[in-house]
Amino acid sequence: MVVSAKLQWSDGLKFTVEVAQGRKMELNAIEEMGRAFTPMELFLVALAGCTAMDIQWIISRQRQQVDRFEVLVRGTRLEKDPRYYEKIDLEYIVAGAGIKRNAVERAIRLSQEKYCSVRAMLKDSVKLNISYTIAAGGPEQKFEFTG
Amino acid sequence: MVVSAKLQWSDGLKFTVEVAQGRKMELNAIEEMGRAFTPMELFLVALAGCTAMDIQWIISRQRQQVDRFEVLVRGTRLEKDPRYYEKIDLEYIVAGAGIKRNAVERAIRLSQEKYCSVRAMLKDSVKLNISYTIAAGGPEQKFEFTG
Repeated sequence: MVVSAKLQWSDGLKFTVEVAQGRKMELNAIEEMGRAFTPMELFLVALAGCTAMDIQWIISRQRQQVDRFEVLVRGTRLEKDPRYYEKIDLEYIVAGAGIKRNAVERAIRLSQEKYCSVRAMLKDSVKLNISYTIAAGGPEQKFEFTG
Repeated sequence: MVVSAKLQWSDGLKFTVEVAQGRKMELNAIEEMGRAFTPMELFLVALAGCTAMDIQWIISRQRQQVDRFEVLVRGTRLEKDPRYYEKIDLEYIVAGAGIKRNAVERAIRLSQEKYCSVRAMLKDSVKLNISYTIAAGGPEQKFEFTG
């Protein structure tokens, strides 16, 4: 399967992006972004979105009743070029009556180890710290995912 | 430097994303995307945008007169999970009077080897094929970048 995009420079470091079906977005560098997105933001969203979809899909097939599902992602960049993310924190928040911890943990593991296409392209030098918070009717509980 | 995003599940495999300054976008899986973007599209745009900005910035400092600059990116996914991009074709198209081939080649090299943050996070199993086309007043000429 092939995915493609076309970027056209407009001015400064601004680019207009077009993908299939005429969908468009604007790119810009961090210093002057306005309504545009930066490449490093899109990268984080790609990673978080990829694993979020895996997990939502796996959990829903385990007949867990999910009322709310959020993913918080935070990347910390190296200070020197090429300034990639040396650390990425991913936190999943799953709420719903009777949500089981082991169902969430299993979904995270399958996403990390088997399904997430973006995750699978990352070098080991990009460290992922994963945690999840479950609100299953009682008080919220936060856990670390250790793989 | 820290970059962050928040994803909220809406329904199916749809998520609403919010980044700094209240900028939002919609995510969805490929099968039903509408106006939303897929994570794998965003990943390609992140990679292409990152290197496009590097190259635009480097070329402009070399006093090349760029009238048009486009980047075409095409990723070919593995057929089996985790279905990552086993091959990514990046083509740069630079037009402008007197654009020098070695200026473009040097900018591509610096982006690949030194500056591009997204590139720097990719495993070697993701193969990049890079080419560039120059229209410097005469007929267009296409070249392979071999690193």
